[in-house]
Amino acid sequence: MRGVLDIPEELVEMQGRVAEALIGVERVFAEQLASDLLPVDAMCAHVERYRGKMLRPTLVMLCGAAADPDGVFGSAAHVIAGAVCEMVHMATLVHDDVLDEAEIRRRGKTLNELRGNEAAVILGDYLIASAYELCSSLESPVPSRIVGNASAVMCTGELLQLHNRENLSLDEGTYFEILERKTAALIGASCELGALCSLGFDRGDDPVTIALRSYGRGMGVAFQIQDDVLDLTGTEEIVGKSVGKDLEKGKMTYPVIHHLSTAGSEQRGRSLAWIRTIAAGDASGTGKLLEAIRGTGSIAAARAKAESLVNEAKRSLDVVGENAGVAMLRVLADAVVRRDH
Amino acid sequence: MRGVLDIPEELVEMQGRVAEALIGVERVFAEQLASDLLPVDAMCAHVERYRGKMLRPTLVMLCGAAADPDGVFGSAAHVIAGAVCEMVHMATLVHDDVLDEAEIRRRGKTLNELRGNEAAVILGDYLIASAYELCSSLESPVPSRIVGNASAVMCTGELLQLHNRENLSLDEGTYFEILERKTAALIGASCELGALCSLGFDRGDDPVTIALRSYGRGMGVAFQIQDDVLDLTGTEEIVGKSVGKDLEKGKMTYPVIHHLSTAGSEQRGRSLAWIRTIAAGDASGTGKLLEAIRGTGSIAAARAKAESLVNEAKRSLDVVGENAGVAMLRVLADAVVRRDH
Repeated sequence: MRGVLDIPEELVEMQGRVAEALIGVERVFAEQLASDLLPVDAMCAHVERYRGKMLRPTLVMLCGAAADPDGVFGSAAHVIAGAVCEMVHMATLVHDDVLDEAEIRRRGKTLNELRGNEAAVILGDYLIASAYELCSSLESPVPSRIVGNASAVMCTGELLQLHNRENLSLDEGTYFEILERKTAALIGASCELGALCSLGFDRGDDPVTIALRSYGRGMGVAFQIQDDVLDLTGTEEIVGKSVGKDLEKGKMTYPVIHHLSTAGSEQRGRSLAWIRTIAAGDASGTGKLLEAIRGTGSIAAARAKAESLVNEAKRSLDVVGENAGVAMLRVLADAVVRRDH
Repeated sequence: MRGVLDIPEELVEMQGRVAEALIGVERVFAEQLASDLLPVDAMCAHVERYRGKMLRPTLVMLCGAAADPDGVFGSAAHVIAGAVCEMVHMATLVHDDVLDEAEIRRRGKTLNELRGNEAAVILGDYLIASAYELCSSLESPVPSRIVGNASAVMCTGELLQLHNRENLSLDEGTYFEILERKTAALIGASCELGALCSLGFDRGDDPVTIALRSYGRGMGVAFQIQDDVLDLTGTEEIVGKSVGKDLEKGKMTYPVIHHLSTAGSEQRGRSLAWIRTIAAGDASGTGKLLEAIRGTGSIAAARAKAESLVNEAKRSLDVVGENAGVAMLRVLADAVVRRDH
């Protein structure tokens, strides 16, 4: 969105309506976080600068449009749901930065770097509490149920990831379990909420709702694999955050797992040694490791995996039928695997 | 509760019913946190050991009984609301321990000490997300609204406290603002939820609901002042957590604020110097500072303040009328200022 996508002529109007709805999301977002306490306000203003792609609110709008092409998809409920999903996402970014001891996000200093871990932990809590408060302003408890569940699942994904930190023999199954929980759950929930805001909150079992949620989940996993790839191939200037962090923090990513499972035993031994020294704080082997990862075709394999997941996600849209919302969801899915940041 | 209170004969039956309802709360609490992931389950089991006084679920039950003396106050809704309030409280304990770098809670090691800050941050997030998910299982979005709002207000209180850390000229007004947000909001919400589970979720403006919430808030502030007193006068063995922590972390408490505002200028200078060295990590002046605080009658003044707040809280119950629930709320309010842990 935001002009970076190659949008076909017939979808330009839809893109405009989404952009308009996102302005509403930004307004609700800021209003909900506004506080009569100056120090709180100052920190929220800093965090608002983290806002980047607005992927989750965009998905709320597009799934709203896909579920009800004739309706006004940018209703108050869609806007609230979009702001809620973005706020939950922002909370996880703030806490992730604390956990990762990250110093840079979106080309600016992180909150933990500027104000300390304590402020960052509490501000993350404030964001998540505000998201729930905002979500409960909707007439039904169903959206709160979906957001509460997705948030809890996300946390279990983070815990599973933490538990497997520096587990160099992490298998693909556990890796996908982590992704589905950590990333795909909230993206799927964003799509589900968009659909329900159009169809009605009692339509959770509607095939359209189920299809859109499934689109979101598949797309979410693909999105994360692309993140893994960018962590290895991106540069700080383009990606906007420190690069190579996953290996430094002992996080096994798809390309690395693929590499270790396909490399010959001698290469595998060398790569494991590099991974260990990188995780121990010595990044000097990163270049050689990257070369080895490319050597087994593991970056290409990760890209292929992401592409196949995106194709599957697009196929699940068939149930929904053809309309401008669905068409935009397809464009967006393709963009996920083509992005360089 | 739990046998530590001096319960009049005619309230023993009520006490039994509350105890029974709290068993239900513990069950719902454990069920909600249960995970198919072993590492998540293990951490939740550890945190369940933090459960102490169960003050918030007890208030849900007693306010439920006070609002509807003839009804069954231990309904499924009361039990869920009780578990939600306890879970939110537990989440703040887990994150507080990270912020305070505390090593001991309830005579056991803290989660951050055992598993690291990262696991503790995520587990706190998991507890809060699970609380919201559980809360949204109630038929109305009103309880989610109350819990979401109370949680957000709590965070602003924490941020305000953090902002004033090592602010040795913290005034009484800001001190109370912090308390009302950090502690009183959730205790007030617990009372409000108890009332609404009995009266109906559309009865937020009922004078009974308002009176019970106001009771909870006043009692919550008194509770925190008593905590301040215990931080200075308690011993680790009785209180179950490290003692003198507030001063070490540069947190100004009621007795200290009172002392600084009543001491002569010479004594004030000496006390400020001790406070600074304690906050800087040298606890050798703690004994002398405590003596000085006692010398200005500041411990007694804090106790008197807590007692006056408790009396005010009890008076707000007059609107509710007389019944066993109300009688128990009075007993509980008195216990808050008399407890030694």
